[in-house]
Amino acid sequence: MFNIALFGAGRIGRIHARNATSTPGLKLKYIVDPDRQAAGRLAGECGAAAVDSDTAFGDASVAGVIIGSATHVHLDQALQAVAAGKTTFCEKPLDLSLERVRAAAAQLGNAPLLMGFNRRFDPHFQALKERLDAGVIGNLETLNITSHDPAPPPIEYVRVSGGLFKDMAIHDFDMARWLLGEEPEEVYVSASCLIDPAIADAGDVDTAKTILRTRNGRLCVISNSRRSGYGYDQRIEAYGAAGSLRADNVLESTVHTWGPHGSASDTFQNFFLDRYAEAYRREMRHFAAILRGEASPSVGYRDGVAALVLAEAAGLSARSNKPVSVRSL
Amino acid sequence: MFNIALFGAGRIGRIHARNATSTPGLKLKYIVDPDRQAAGRLAGECGAAAVDSDTAFGDASVAGVIIGSATHVHLDQALQAVAAGKTTFCEKPLDLSLERVRAAAAQLGNAPLLMGFNRRFDPHFQALKERLDAGVIGNLETLNITSHDPAPPPIEYVRVSGGLFKDMAIHDFDMARWLLGEEPEEVYVSASCLIDPAIADAGDVDTAKTILRTRNGRLCVISNSRRSGYGYDQRIEAYGAAGSLRADNVLESTVHTWGPHGSASDTFQNFFLDRYAEAYRREMRHFAAILRGEASPSVGYRDGVAALVLAEAAGLSARSNKPVSVRSL
Amino acid sequence: MFNIALFGAGRIGRIHARNATSTPGLKLKYIVDPDRQAAGRLAGECGAAAVDSDTAFGDASVAGVIIGSATHVHLDQALQAVAAGKTTFCEKPLDLSLERVRAAAAQLGNAPLLMGFNRRFDPHFQALKERLDAGVIGNLETLNITSHDPAPPPIEYVRVSGGLFKDMAIHDFDMARWLLGEEPEEVYVSASCLIDPAIADAGDVDTAKTILRTRNGRLCVISNSRRSGYGYDQRIEAYGAAGSLRADNVLESTVHTWGPHGSASDTFQNFFLDRYAEAYRREMRHFAAILRGEASPSVGYRDGVAALVLAEAAGLSARSNKPVSVRSL
Amino acid sequence: MFNIALFGAGRIGRIHARNATSTPGLKLKYIVDPDRQAAGRLAGECGAAAVDSDTAFGDASVAGVIIGSATHVHLDQALQAVAAGKTTFCEKPLDLSLERVRAAAAQLGNAPLLMGFNRRFDPHFQALKERLDAGVIGNLETLNITSHDPAPPPIEYVRVSGGLFKDMAIHDFDMARWLLGEEPEEVYVSASCLIDPAIADAGDVDTAKTILRTRNGRLCVISNSRRSGYGYDQRIEAYGAAGSLRADNVLESTVHTWGPHGSASDTFQNFFLDRYAEAYRREMRHFAAILRGEASPSVGYRDGVAALVLAEAAGLSARSNKPVSVRSL
Repeated sequence: MFNIALFGAGRIGRIHARNATSTPGLKLKYIVDPDRQAAGRLAGECGAAAVDSDTAFGDASVAGVIIGSATHVHLDQALQAVAAGKTTFCEKPLDLSLERVRAAAAQLGNAPLLMGFNRRFDPHFQALKERLDAGVIGNLETLNITSHDPAPPPIEYVRVSGGLFKDMAIHDFDMARWLLGEEPEEVYVSASCLIDPAIADAGDVDTAKTILRTRNGRLCVISNSRRSGYGYDQRIEAYGAAGSLRADNVLESTVHTWGPHGSASDTFQNFFLDRYAEAYRREMRHFAAILRGEASPSVGYRDGVAALVLAEAAGLSARSNKPVSVRSL
Repeated sequence: MFNIALFGAGRIGRIHARNATSTPGLKLKYIVDPDRQAAGRLAGECGAAAVDSDTAFGDASVAGVIIGSATHVHLDQALQAVAAGKTTFCEKPLDLSLERVRAAAAQLGNAPLLMGFNRRFDPHFQALKERLDAGVIGNLETLNITSHDPAPPPIEYVRVSGGLFKDMAIHDFDMARWLLGEEPEEVYVSASCLIDPAIADAGDVDTAKTILRTRNGRLCVISNSRRSGYGYDQRIEAYGAAGSLRADNVLESTVHTWGPHGSASDTFQNFFLDRYAEAYRREMRHFAAILRGEASPSVGYRDGVAALVLAEAAGLSARSNKPVSVRSL
Repeated sequence: MFNIALFGAGRIGRIHARNATSTPGLKLKYIVDPDRQAAGRLAGECGAAAVDSDTAFGDASVAGVIIGSATHVHLDQALQAVAAGKTTFCEKPLDLSLERVRAAAAQLGNAPLLMGFNRRFDPHFQALKERLDAGVIGNLETLNITSHDPAPPPIEYVRVSGGLFKDMAIHDFDMARWLLGEEPEEVYVSASCLIDPAIADAGDVDTAKTILRTRNGRLCVISNSRRSGYGYDQRIEAYGAAGSLRADNVLESTVHTWGPHGSASDTFQNFFLDRYAEAYRREMRHFAAILRGEASPSVGYRDGVAALVLAEAAGLSARSNKPVSVRSL
Repeated sequence: MFNIALFGAGRIGRIHARNATSTPGLKLKYIVDPDRQAAGRLAGECGAAAVDSDTAFGDASVAGVIIGSATHVHLDQALQAVAAGKTTFCEKPLDLSLERVRAAAAQLGNAPLLMGFNRRFDPHFQALKERLDAGVIGNLETLNITSHDPAPPPIEYVRVSGGLFKDMAIHDFDMARWLLGEEPEEVYVSASCLIDPAIADAGDVDTAKTILRTRNGRLCVISNSRRSGYGYDQRIEAYGAAGSLRADNVLESTVHTWGPHGSASDTFQNFFLDRYAEAYRREMRHFAAILRGEASPSVGYRDGVAALVLAEAAGLSARSNKPVSVRSL
């Protein structure tokens, strides 16, 4: 049994708490959150204790630290956790500042740090990647990643989110890197504010089409929208020399209704809590395997940096309306 | 060019007129219908002449006769056409009376007579049969045929239709024979009147589940309903030792709408005029090939008799609530 | 926390053990199995103790008993559990003998007994039932239940299974009762042995088409096969006055491959352990709700009897080739 | 009856010949092609006469001219046809040179000239556009057009084709204009040669992702590939404020095969002759309606120019790796 301290008792913290509790080999010991009430409540539900961070880091029986707190403290907590010798699982992004993240390279570059890019653990995307790696469609040529949220977040969140590219598309940049088989070298973005003028007022965009280009000319198009009108749209299409692979959206059930207007499916799973429930479970099992020494982090610090670089380049491109070379960052 | 005389200027007659006109090698010369106005109108549209039946049968330049008239004259017209030496294409059923149909065996048994079981020419069902014959699912074990009309016909029609089994299910009995690979030996039906009590008053049923059983124990379930609520439901599922084949309904277009309620397809093609438009065209091309001597009728008199026997057995079973042996008829 | 004793450490026992362990409010205390090694192993994995049945029944702290043992001891254990005042969750069937099951009516008829018809808890079938109950397709007229296993069980199992109808189709009889909205009054079966002659030698069939008929003429067709060639085929189609509802099979992932041969899906989930994993979890949560007094068993003794009656009638019909009235049993 | 002269007896000419022949109201009188053998053969099949262009243009009884000849003579023949007072249907593109096309504005700008952008007549894309216009998804925000050919054309053709953008993507530029509801103002392309180095040697690309941007920030992504590995990939996705519309590929039949590897569809329709067969028929019926004075060309000279401008801009962007303003051309 590995004792775990969880930082963050919010939405994502609760998911990790539940999964840590039901993952064999893990024992959720501590919950840490500046909101002591929230920490206490979640601790109560999970049979853990709500403590302060010093207690958690200082307890030598704690083997693993999960960081699911607010973005702006991710990096500090990750540095503390690693410094305290804990195996660490940190939600993305490490930080909104590429400079600060790069400055932590010496401490974090070789640490046992799992970056929470949950989509790498999604069974549908994993099934696609397995087939891609097995050569089912031959040499990969282009990739389409669709990532549309059901509805925009509150404007207060938009303001501190780091913007669409660092907050939302960063997952897609990681997916692109994971699947493309070579690093993107250039980023071009055409972005608009079509959904809510308040998002433009906040200095952000809500709709974007991004093209990533690799050294050998592979092309990846990422489609981002803060609002879909139909649920959480999370799809990947890979095009190769011998065919195409596509991972489609997940429906609430297989039920279809046939009526005068044709055949209607059940609704799409609404948002990431549902859509990626199994991904979060698999991610936690991977963290347990790291703790047992049976695996090393499949996605770590360097991946966090690389995705952030692409997000930074995307923002630059959107503002300048020019392709941006990744090497220039 | 083969001159054609068409009997019947109603709904099915118009389809055959249009297809005969556009099928290379056929020249629609005559339209015959007791309703002279309808005959004249259709003839005008097709560049044909509206004539009486003696003219049509007596014209030695007429090579082919298409019988798309009312059911109760099918058999007489088929006998006359064959007697006049015409290659004949007769809509199903030959007659509602099994006795009368059997009595025509000497004249029709070896005549060049194409029975209008249009579904044998449907590209989807043909694609299914090709795979079945190619052994894609191994030895066939069971078969499901779904045949639901969009809405019941007028009650006046129901009264003279010969009943659900001879009027509607007869197509499905032919499909079953075509696909099962061996003749059904026993028929059991459980039928209800659930849609409209007037249908029961007319001595008919509107909903039926039929099980056909072959000598080797292959089983076929036919589902019939006079009303679907969603369009014309025409599907076939074949189950074999190595898998399953299914031909699905045809939609008006490939367009899907994604919205808050999930994904909705376009409507199902509404009824047989649309659903089997291509089947009717292929059927006519087959008739042209028969006229050219390049093919013999792929479905003929014996198939008409056999389907009628199954319809008769189905009616008996529905009334007696017992399995009926085909040999007993 | 409710202490639970689980009888049976085999395949289904392990599922219930895992689900009991992860269901909030339940504490798996005991595992009972004549195979002490298996009991010990499973107990070790779950933090439970392997004990004999007297210990389990005699421990007043045990609130709930789960019976996942071999079929022939279900009824005895259920009687003991109920006699000991335990809230009981018993796998189907209660017994293979309708006579014995009926004889237990006095003891079990009003007991807090949850019958393990897991499919009632499947999210797909529940979604279908919700829409049916909400009137989405109007008045229900007919129902198709498809239930094909991926591959036949070992012949040793077939011999003691009670036969296809009591062993396999009993689930479908329960589904039919759950969905039809009125009790079936008559059963007709046409069954064959098409897959393996050894099954016929064991006195059983491997392929069957069953028609259930209710008082008002609603018709239900159940298709059973011991082998599909493509995975576990578990589908329901409901036809009503205004349309149709269908719950389809579940795929391993949403990934499709497009190649020269068209579009290929991922594989179907292979068997009930995968296909009904979520159903088993929901069933266990329902059992927990019963223990908390928040729910009464949604499926109980009377449902177990009724499904067994239909299975008995089906067997009789298959042997006699006649429709069998349910009331005659 | 309107007499028609058809220029071009090649692949596209044969399609138009067949459709002109079977479209009510049209009479194919002449076939003109420098390859007199091909012209004669096609004329023979259609009951037309093979003549030279002077005869065709000079015959006052010819009301309509269809130009399906080689691209480099489109413009000259269109000018001659219009000068001769013929209602003209010209295959795309009018010419590969934007300069030459623009120079013909005075003669062609107001002429009864139907441009052969066949996809506007595809029933699937029309169904999508109807819903878009009906507001089914609210305000349109982004558009994805996928246009992948099954396999690259011969390299000899590539050399004279005008390049991927003028030869292939020009259809997609027209689709984008048709659907976007406002003109694209800026074009960015990232293009590669991934399929065949000989295409690069010919100065062309084989894989491209294009972003079109309208004045109000609507974004359209076009994906082009000279080779799919799975057939002709022709899809459109429209994203709006209230949902999404998508027109999918067309399969050869509705047949699916279920086996150990899941569910497999029939093949995709292979290429434009099959995929757009119905579009070509509808296009010809529209041409007949123009001749009867019942319609004016739904797509004409100005559309031809506008699509060519976008193709020109796309080529410039691909070479310069910069967004190109449409107004600069």
